[in-house]
Amino acid sequence: MDIYLALVHHPVMNRQGNVVTTSVTNLDIHDLARTARTYAVLGYFVVTPIDEQRELVGKVVNHWVDGEGRPSNPDRAEAFSRVEVVPSLSAAIAAIGARHEGQSAGKPPLVIGTSARKDRSTVTYEALRKTLSDEPGTALLVFGTGWGLAPDALAQCDVMLDPIEALPARAGYNHLPVRAACAIILDRLLGDR
Amino acid sequence: MDIYLALVHHPVMNRQGNVVTTSVTNLDIHDLARTARTYAVLGYFVVTPIDEQRELVGKVVNHWVDGEGRPSNPDRAEAFSRVEVVPSLSAAIAAIGARHEGQSAGKPPLVIGTSARKDRSTVTYEALRKTLSDEPGTALLVFGTGWGLAPDALAQCDVMLDPIEALPARAGYNHLPVRAACAIILDRLLGDR
Repeated sequence: MDIYLALVHHPVMNRQGNVVTTSVTNLDIHDLARTARTYAVLGYFVVTPIDEQRELVGKVVNHWVDGEGRPSNPDRAEAFSRVEVVPSLSAAIAAIGARHEGQSAGKPPLVIGTSARKDRSTVTYEALRKTLSDEPGTALLVFGTGWGLAPDALAQCDVMLDPIEALPARAGYNHLPVRAACAIILDRLLGDR
Repeated sequence: MDIYLALVHHPVMNRQGNVVTTSVTNLDIHDLARTARTYAVLGYFVVTPIDEQRELVGKVVNHWVDGEGRPSNPDRAEAFSRVEVVPSLSAAIAAIGARHEGQSAGKPPLVIGTSARKDRSTVTYEALRKTLSDEPGTALLVFGTGWGLAPDALAQCDVMLDPIEALPARAGYNHLPVRAACAIILDRLLGDR
């Protein structure tokens, strides 16, 4: 399948369990763009409903793709050329559908949610790895910032991935940065291991 | 084995192939501390020969472990309590030896180098995963900042790990942030997959 990635800043949870909008961070744009490019992810959607933040991300991306940053760092330009900024998860799903119109019988992307908690039924990495490898079509991996995706975002996911865990003898602490979680999940699904 | 991690700021290479000292970044401290703690790494050594930078890291760590940051973020305190700051890779190796004196017949840690390039003989993740699981003793995973570990640091490594690669159909770009590389390698060696 052709793989896409979304980093959602709304609707997500905060530590107190309320639905909030988090701020876009420069580092998340950089790290996820480079990691996504390493695993041949076709597009990385930065999702925020705040107009000013979408403008800001657009400026950062343009600086590296078409602007002054390009000559000094062509690898970064290549990674950043796959970054898109959208106001909602629905817009990301629609953008993938539009881009692949006429392929795979016009099916929408398989939307794959991620969570640090296992509070609903999930698919294993092994099963999803096989699906991504063998099936036609498109898939969108969805990551939440803050304390994770809010119910309205989870409701848009077709399947949920198992939480990342260390070996049982090493388990017990689960506060991975989203940058680390994204890298691990892409590697579990698309890495040559 | 008991696992340790080192992030080396000197001696490392820059883009031009010269040996340099990179700056410690706040984000590398945060991300690697949380990722290391998730995989039950016993200690995370921030390696820099610059006195002022070691002082700075010490202040950041103290803020979260014993200072004002602790009450608001106990998870971070737990991750940061395993951060140590040392002037050299040799000092990290010596600190592990001292901490485990009298165990495993006093053997020094197995020093495991990482690189994005395969320009020397390497061990596979599968083989090292088995060693770490089955053997007694200690191991130190060494990550370079900048454009990777310099020859003097590589010379201190007992073995080198295979570079991280995506599936062959997805390969061709390899510019992972060190924060992503560290997360992927810990997961390949110590993850429950």
